[in-house]
Amino acid sequence: MIRLYFVTNNKHKVAEAQKILSKYSVELEPIDIKKVELQSESLEDIARYAAIEAYKIIAKPVVVEDSGLFIDALNGFPGPYSSYVYKTLGLKRILKLLEGEENRRARFIAVVALALSCEDVYLFKGVVEGVIAHEIRGGKGFGFDPIFIPIEGDGRTFAEMNSEEKNIISHRGRAFEALGRWISANRDKLIYIL
Amino acid sequence: MIRLYFVTNNKHKVAEAQKILSKYSVELEPIDIKKVELQSESLEDIARYAAIEAYKIIAKPVVVEDSGLFIDALNGFPGPYSSYVYKTLGLKRILKLLEGEENRRARFIAVVALALSCEDVYLFKGVVEGVIAHEIRGGKGFGFDPIFIPIEGDGRTFAEMNSEEKNIISHRGRAFEALGRWISANRDKLIYIL
Repeated sequence: MIRLYFVTNNKHKVAEAQKILSKYSVELEPIDIKKVELQSESLEDIARYAAIEAYKIIAKPVVVEDSGLFIDALNGFPGPYSSYVYKTLGLKRILKLLEGEENRRARFIAVVALALSCEDVYLFKGVVEGVIAHEIRGGKGFGFDPIFIPIEGDGRTFAEMNSEEKNIISHRGRAFEALGRWISANRDKLIYIL
Repeated sequence: MIRLYFVTNNKHKVAEAQKILSKYSVELEPIDIKKVELQSESLEDIARYAAIEAYKIIAKPVVVEDSGLFIDALNGFPGPYSSYVYKTLGLKRILKLLEGEENRRARFIAVVALALSCEDVYLFKGVVEGVIAHEIRGGKGFGFDPIFIPIEGDGRTFAEMNSEEKNIISHRGRAFEALGRWISANRDKLIYIL
């Protein structure tokens, strides 16, 4: 069992990630230090910076995740600022912004950064394509899940799926799967670091 | 004449600030290094962090400015993310979000941070209260100026005022005035540093 620190105060994210990483014998240890988040339109830059800043504090292998909802008709908004926009505008105002808009294409993107030192940072990306629903549907998940319908699904929003269903196709699920596979392939090397 | 570096790539901000600081015999030297901007709901935190990061690079007294439009009915949105929101959503969509909204109160806030070292950081804040217009008006200024009507004015938006008129009451004008006054009062000490 490999143990990795995970900088987050979002229990939903820990639960989603842990379900996937358990398959790869990785245990996530949530750690409640301040995640230093840059303003940037690049989730990669945000995640890399946050991972390095976290490593500077705890000096142990550490994982951070950054994700966002990118809506085409809104030029990628809310993007990296999704959690702030969810908190201030909320779901209804996103639907209002898209009233009368034919192009409802959007994607969720997640980037996971693993810092093994301040120089060794590995990035894992997951994407799920979808459309913004015309109404809020479902009580599961969190954030923008109730208005996001993945294209690979059956028309339900993420908030209408249980966590197993969502994990298979979700951006976060895919990013953590990529991390899990990478750890499996590099276990020999990692054992000395972790 | 005291010379201060000013980390920005926004010519409008340089022009606005220079007009004020000239009165205090301060010359701003724009410097085009990357401004490291945190995600935070506190402009003070963002400005302080950016000033320290800039000082680490240039090792000379340096000024940064961070500002935002805070709309009450939108829980403070767009706040510190105003330039991103301006670029992605634009003015019309902000008006759309406020359709049917009676409370149109908003304020522009600017925070100027002066770093004299990595430890010596001074903050100067300017606020201007106003309301969000019902339509886009005026071609001067930049950003959200065409939809912001200051309460202290005569009903015109910031974009309908010339820069002298705007500077007297604007958030940025007030923050740089505070910086100018502080420099005047501390010129004896500063002469050794600057």
